[in-house]
Order: sequence, then structure tokens, then C-alpha cells
Amino acid sequence: MNGSECAMKAAKDAGIEVCFANPGTTELPLVVALDTVGGIRPVLGLFEGVCTGAADGYARMLQKPVMVLLHLGPGLANGIANLHNAKRAHSKIVTLVGEHSTWHRPFDPPLAMDIESLAKTVSGWQRTCVSCDRLGQDMADAVEAADKGQIATIIVPFDLQTEKCGSGVVVSHKKEKPSVSRGAVKTAATLLREGKKTVLMLGNKYIGRKELLAAARIKQACGCDLITENFPAHIMRGAGLPDVIRVPYLPEMAIDMLSKYDVLIFAGAKEPVSFFGYEGIPPAFLKDEQQKFHLSTPDQDLLDVLDILADELDASKIINPDLLASLKIPEMPAGVLTPDKICAVIAALQPEGAIVVEEAITTGLMYYSITSGVAPFDLLTLTGGAIGQGAPCAVGAAIACPDRPVINFQADGAGMYTLQALWTEAREGLNVTTLICSNRSYDILKVEYGRLGVSPGKCATQLTDLAGIDWVNLGKGMGVPSVKVTTAEVLVRELGKALHEQGPNLIQMVM
Amino acid sequence: MNGSECAMKAAKDAGIEVCFANPGTTELPLVVALDTVGGIRPVLGLFEGVCTGAADGYARMLQKPVMVLLHLGPGLANGIANLHNAKRAHSKIVTLVGEHSTWHRPFDPPLAMDIESLAKTVSGWQRTCVSCDRLGQDMADAVEAADKGQIATIIVPFDLQTEKCGSGVVVSHKKEKPSVSRGAVKTAATLLREGKKTVLMLGNKYIGRKELLAAARIKQACGCDLITENFPAHIMRGAGLPDVIRVPYLPEMAIDMLSKYDVLIFAGAKEPVSFFGYEGIPPAFLKDEQQKFHLSTPDQDLLDVLDILADELDASKIINPDLLASLKIPEMPAGVLTPDKICAVIAALQPEGAIVVEEAITTGLMYYSITSGVAPFDLLTLTGGAIGQGAPCAVGAAIACPDRPVINFQADGAGMYTLQALWTEAREGLNVTTLICSNRSYDILKVEYGRLGVSPGKCATQLTDLAGIDWVNLGKGMGVPSVKVTTAEVLVRELGKALHEQGPNLIQMVM
Repeated sequence: MNGSECAMKAAKDAGIEVCFANPGTTELPLVVALDTVGGIRPVLGLFEGVCTGAADGYARMLQKPVMVLLHLGPGLANGIANLHNAKRAHSKIVTLVGEHSTWHRPFDPPLAMDIESLAKTVSGWQRTCVSCDRLGQDMADAVEAADKGQIATIIVPFDLQTEKCGSGVVVSHKKEKPSVSRGAVKTAATLLREGKKTVLMLGNKYIGRKELLAAARIKQACGCDLITENFPAHIMRGAGLPDVIRVPYLPEMAIDMLSKYDVLIFAGAKEPVSFFGYEGIPPAFLKDEQQKFHLSTPDQDLLDVLDILADELDASKIINPDLLASLKIPEMPAGVLTPDKICAVIAALQPEGAIVVEEAITTGLMYYSITSGVAPFDLLTLTGGAIGQGAPCAVGAAIACPDRPVINFQADGAGMYTLQALWTEAREGLNVTTLICSNRSYDILKVEYGRLGVSPGKCATQLTDLAGIDWVNLGKGMGVPSVKVTTAEVLVRELGKALHEQGPNLIQMVM
Repeated sequence: MNGSECAMKAAKDAGIEVCFANPGTTELPLVVALDTVGGIRPVLGLFEGVCTGAADGYARMLQKPVMVLLHLGPGLANGIANLHNAKRAHSKIVTLVGEHSTWHRPFDPPLAMDIESLAKTVSGWQRTCVSCDRLGQDMADAVEAADKGQIATIIVPFDLQTEKCGSGVVVSHKKEKPSVSRGAVKTAATLLREGKKTVLMLGNKYIGRKELLAAARIKQACGCDLITENFPAHIMRGAGLPDVIRVPYLPEMAIDMLSKYDVLIFAGAKEPVSFFGYEGIPPAFLKDEQQKFHLSTPDQDLLDVLDILADELDASKIINPDLLASLKIPEMPAGVLTPDKICAVIAALQPEGAIVVEEAITTGLMYYSITSGVAPFDLLTLTGGAIGQGAPCAVGAAIACPDRPVINFQADGAGMYTLQALWTEAREGLNVTTLICSNRSYDILKVEYGRLGVSPGKCATQLTDLAGIDWVNLGKGMGVPSVKVTTAEVLVRELGKALHEQGPNLIQMVM
């Protein structure tokens, strides 16, 4: 075996099944090893931000490490924005980057960059390989590091990839799952029993059915509220699940909502802060006099934590249905499209088990609240605020869960960032329905001009104006069947059709 | 004035006329200042890589600083690949990045990143502003730093942008143009007079008509050859100019070509090295026994250096026409398109004064050699190897030189990276003709598989296959009139038409 084969074998043995890739010359031996070793499926993205965003979507759905293969510094740079979102989602991603041969790099060839400095902006773990014989172990270590819920970046010089090496035997470390602190659970239980106005704030890589029902047991036992972060990485939602309130985006609303609690218990969540800073509004939403208790961190198992806490509270395993959302499908709207009508149509039509990637920005504001009682579905949101996450994330979710419909609820401005993802949807025949919110504007910036008390002048107006994009042509250009709709009735018809067809579709929703 | 206005006024006073921008909330006061201060034209790109690549194209054409305005760390990250190309081109770019308010940043809001670490991978100068009162001076310093031929990055926290500040009076430093070393010129002259087989290697931000004619005087006086780097940032070419040989991309060819010289004199050029490292091939092309002399660096004025050297050699100012390329237009080919026919059609039709941005990769291999005798034109190439440079660079060149036709000779794989640039061409009505080399493949990687002696397996084949992209739809989706051609005859007709129309056009050249 050569170094590349050792690395790919180690990756496969550690459970890697998919590699989102846009390799170049310095990664070709690694590509060749995908063939000779086998067992890892390569998925091509035509821009690195597609690859990293897809890896994020895949990791969020399956809660297991996935690989992304990028070309030198520029390839990594192109992937960083979506790795930033993935980092904020605690996604398990091994970022594999080729580097010039060790004897070539000192000559500063044109593509040479400071890859390590780029990598450290998103990686929780990173290593530049220095020995071919250690490549297998390096990769095993990278997968193990990623499995803790972080980006693990491994930088492999070309000459180490091609060198012959030993057996490639790898020491696999015993997985140490960070254990739940019994003391912390007891403290949380005491706080919950005190009868003060208390909220349990959930945040983690994955807040699924079991986690939600464990939280509902706690709520039933103690009367606390359940909330989640403003941008949850992956949360289940819908009828039969407790309705978890999302911290509002606007700081005034968030502060108002959170101010009613005496005690806040954080399970895998961070203390909420303002997305942007505004003069006169505190960046942290909680006051000193509010009691905060950190029960668990994102790398701890949320389900374990909640189950143990519920048991500590002697919470019943039978949950009163009143604590769970009952089935409630929004009424089907009619007429010209508005953001609220769009949210209603999607909520009404999305099938049980749908995966919804929501990067709808201003158009999606009402979506979360009206989906509390729909058929249960999985929601992925823009954790790190770096736009261009929607389409790639949908690609990754569809690769991870090929039998489930994926809806990419996508703002047009953000969608333009990584529209190349549509090509991967077509190439792989993915069941992704892309719903473009075509308001032809960076509307969020208009909101922010208003907050600044500024009436935008000519330059400011021009820099928010996205007129002239025809998404039907863009979709078709990428190989995705695409239509334009302007009314709720036609949206209902087209979305219904798209959800029942195999393969990708795009609907430009003109407002 | 507030901090933003001080900064924008300082930028305008220092000569900044254009700002390629994709701002977000943390940059809005800077946007507002574009309106209140006036005099700087904002140009919106729908992805940051478009903005930075456009800034590069603009700076290469005008040899003066230009501004790019980006949103926080993710926005900068998205722009880094093309800043890397710009860095390799010694382009004069001020990168202005917003940051969270100083009192907000410590709370680690979702979009927070290590902007400084990102910036240092491409910047020759960078500063995070710490005082509103100094913002004007910071900006003046940034423009001055950029004017040395590098990326100058200025990171401005939001609160400093909005704070009221003083007069904004700025100390403008005397521009110190790095002077030409008389001693170096004398040494070079001595070497050139020795009669050994000598080459003068030109490399710089700009190798224009005057520079080329000064080099021709030197050649005439001493019989040396003239060569340039493999990827010149900006070189003039065509009839009436000396034919400057380009160092070949393939290392075997480059080594062979360079081995015949006893003496190499570098004027603004680096010693040539292999683009990628190959086993058994030296990364540096020159042998120890070859004499190398570095006459000037890229930040010195190439024209000054060459003029002074020519005078030192008592070189005649009248150049024998035999030393200059005579007019030679390639014959018009016919039949199905091949790379060579495409190069011939473009070379034959491109008008005098055209600006050609060449990111055609494998399709463009013959283009340089067959354009030695065409009507004089300006050529910009992929200096840093980070693909996705062509379309943005063409945007910037067209903004810089609105009266000249711009041809973007564009590989399809690389073109997909930053296709959003087409939208800016349409929005701004730019005279850019985009010629897509539609071979539906990362062909360069197939060449590299061959060099590795590998016959690509299933994964390796899949990762080079770009089937299914319809550029006519993509172009139309962005608002650019687009056609598909499959023969040389139709390409001749369509390119002729496109070059005579105002506004952008796209031609998908199917091979």
C-alpha cells in the first residue's frame, strides 16, 4: 500500500462512507486510493463550498463523521464559510487537504498558501502529516477527533501520498464518550424542583424524537418550559412532539421572551447572544440576576443527559398528550405569494419524514412557528450565519437519507452563493426540492437599514438589489427541472408534484 | 463625520474610485458612507469571490488601488481564493472587512471568526482598527500599503464605524517609489555585454507596450532573449511588439527551454519553479551552474528599470522591425470545434485593444503562441492557480476600461466556480464576451492521471466528469444573452456578432 491507500483504508475502517470532493492534482493519489481501497463513495461538487456544506448536511442527518476532499489552500478557502456553519453545528467532518510535496513546497509554487492558518479558523483538530508510515494513524486520529463533533483537518503532502509504506495497521482508540456528570444532573434536578420560573434550553448536534420526549417528561414533572437556540443544527418538529420555542432572531424579542425566567438550564446549548450588536441593546440576553446552570456541553450525549435527568426527577414515562403538539396543518392560502403564504404552503404540503433545510432568511420568519403541529419532520438551519449553506446542506442530507424527501427552503440572495449544488442534485438524482424565495433583494439588509434609522441612498439601495435573476434558467442550466410560480395555488400544485417525483426540482417563488 | 465617513473620505482622497462589494449588516455604515461621501462607485457581486476577482482585474488594468468590501470572516473567506491570485499578481487591493462591535465580539456571536488569521494568508499589510479617530488614517495607510502592489486588509469593528469622530484629517505620506539600484543596472549591463547566452526574464504587475519596447532595445543591443513567467499578471502582446516567450507549464518543456541559457537576468520576475511537483523532476528549473541575477523586484517600476538599463547599454531607441512581431492573423478554421481551432478563431477575431482574460486551462494551451502577431491586446492570466478567476477578473477589467472589449476565455470547470460574475456583467452592462470551453470535464486532471501513470478507475473518472451543464441557460439565468456553438464557422459568426454588440454575451463552445 502507499500512503493514500493507508489513509483511505483507515478512513473506511473508522466508518467513513462518503467523501464530498473537488480534488486537484495534489490530491490525485488519494482519489486513486478511493478506487483501489473501495467502500467510500465520492460525490463531486463543482465548488468547494458545495462539498463542505454537503458534508455538514450529511453529518447533521447521520451524526457520524464524513469526509471532504479539497485542493490545497484555495480549495480549503472556498470551503471555509460552510465549514464555519458546520463548526457551529458541531458537525463531524474530516477535511482532507492535499499539499505540495515536502520538497516542492519551499519553492513557493503559484498555488502555495498558508493552509494551516486557514484550517485553524474552523478546525477543532488539525494535523499536517509528516510521515507516510503514519498516514493511516493520522487519518484514524482525524476521524476520532471529528467524531467528537468538530472539524478535523488533515493536510497531506503529495509525496507522502504516493510513498510506499508499511502495513497500515492502525491503533484504534477506545471511544471515550464524555460522560454525564451525576453532580450536574442532581443540581439541575434541584433547580427544577424549586418551582421558580424555569426553562430548559436544548441545543446540540441533534435534537430528535427521543431527546424531545425526554425533555417533555422533564417538563411534565416540573412545569419548566422548553426552548432551543435561534439556529438549531438539527431539530425534529411536529405533531406528537413537544413544541420547543426557538429564541427569536431580533434581540428585543429574545430579551423579552427570556426575561420571564428566573432559572435557565442549558443542555448542550450556549447562552443566547445577539446575532448582531446594536447600540443600546445588551449583546448577552440574560441578566446577572437570572440564574444560569450549564448541565451539559455539546459533545456530551443529549439524550443520555435528558434521560438521566428525567429519571432523577422520577418523571413519568407516560406523557400527557396535552404537552405534545396536536396535528394542525395550516390552511391553504390563495392569491399572490407573500412570505407568510409561502410558509403556509410548505408547512401544509411537506410530508411526514421530510427534511427541511431552511435558509429562507426574511421569507422564512413565520415558518418555525406554523410548523409546530405538522407531520413530524427534521429541520436544519443556518447555524453560523454564513449564507450559501442551504443548497449544499440539502445535497448532503439527501445523500445521507436517500429515501426521504428533502426541501431546500432557500432565499435567493443566499442561494446564489452556492448554486452549483443544483448540479450535484441533478448528477446524483437527489430527491431535493429547491424552493427559491424570489424577492430579488437582500431584504434582511433593508430591515437593518431601518434599525440603523437610515433611509438608504443610491449606493445603499443598489447594494441590496438582486433584480434580473431567472432561477428557472439557472436550474435548467444545472440539469434540474425548474418552474416559476407567482400564486399560492400554483405553488401548491407544483410543490405537490415535485414532492411526488423522483429526483431534484426547483420552484422559483416570485413575490 | 462618523468613522465610516472618515474612512471613505480618506479612501476617496487617496484615489479609490471603485468598490466591489457584498456587504452585510456589520458593514452598513460603510455603505451609507459611500452615499454621504460620494465619489466611490459601488459594484455589487453576488458572491465574494466575484468581488475580489473583479478587484484583481481592475487593479491589473489600471495599476492603481481599488477597494473590496466584504462581510465579516465568512465573506472574507469566500473572497480568499481570488485574493490569492491577486496577491500573486501584485495587484493593489484594499480589502475592507467589517467586524462585530468591540463590545459584542467577546460574546462569540454566530458569525464570529478569526478574521485576522484568514486575512494574513493573503495580505501583505493588515490592521484591525482600534479607534474611531484613527479610521481615516488607517484607511490612508491601507491605500498606501496596497499601492506597493499587495493586498492591504483593514478590519473595522461596527461600533467604530458609527462613532462620531474628529475632522478626519489624514496625514498622507510621501509616496516612496522604490528606486532602481544603479549598481544592479550596471551589473546587469556587464552580464549582458559578456556575450554569453543570456535571457532577460520579465515579470511584474504590468508588462505594457513601453516596457516591451524598452526590453526590445536591450535585446537589440545585446542579443539576449526575452521571456516572461508562466502566468503573467498582465502583458501586452501582438504585432509591433517583441514576441516574449512564456515559460511553459509542463516542467520538462520549461527545463528544456531554460537550459540553453548561461545567464538569466530577472526584472520583476521570480525564478521559475514547477507548478506542481513531480517525482524525479527538480522543482526549480534552473541549475546551479546557470548564472542568475536579480535586477529588480515586483515593487520596483519595471519601465524605469528597463529604460535605465537600455540607456546604460547605449541601446538605440530605434528598433529594427525584425525584432518585433509582424502582423500575422491565424487562418480561419472550419468544422467541429477543437481546442486549437477555438484558439485560432479568438486570435483571428479579437480586435485591437481587446483585453483577454485567459482561464481556458487545457483548451487554451495554444493560444499564447498563436497570438504573437495579432492586433495588439492585453492578456491577463491565472497567476495563483486558484480557479474561478476568469469571469470576475473580466468584470473588473471591463469596469476599469469601459471602452475596450473584454474577452473571457473560460474553461467550463473553472467557470462554474464563480459564474455569479455573469450577473454583474448583465447588471452593469459590461462589454464582456464569455467564451466557455465546454469539454464537460476537468481535462487537466486527466493529463495529470497520465503523468502519474494511472488509468483512472470509477471514482477517479467520476470526479473529472462535468456532464450536464447547459451554459446557455446559465447565462440567460444571469441575464446574459447566450448561444451554443459546435463548429468553427458558427463560432466565427457568433463571436463576430458578440464583439460588435454593447453589453455582455456568452458563447458555449461545445467540443
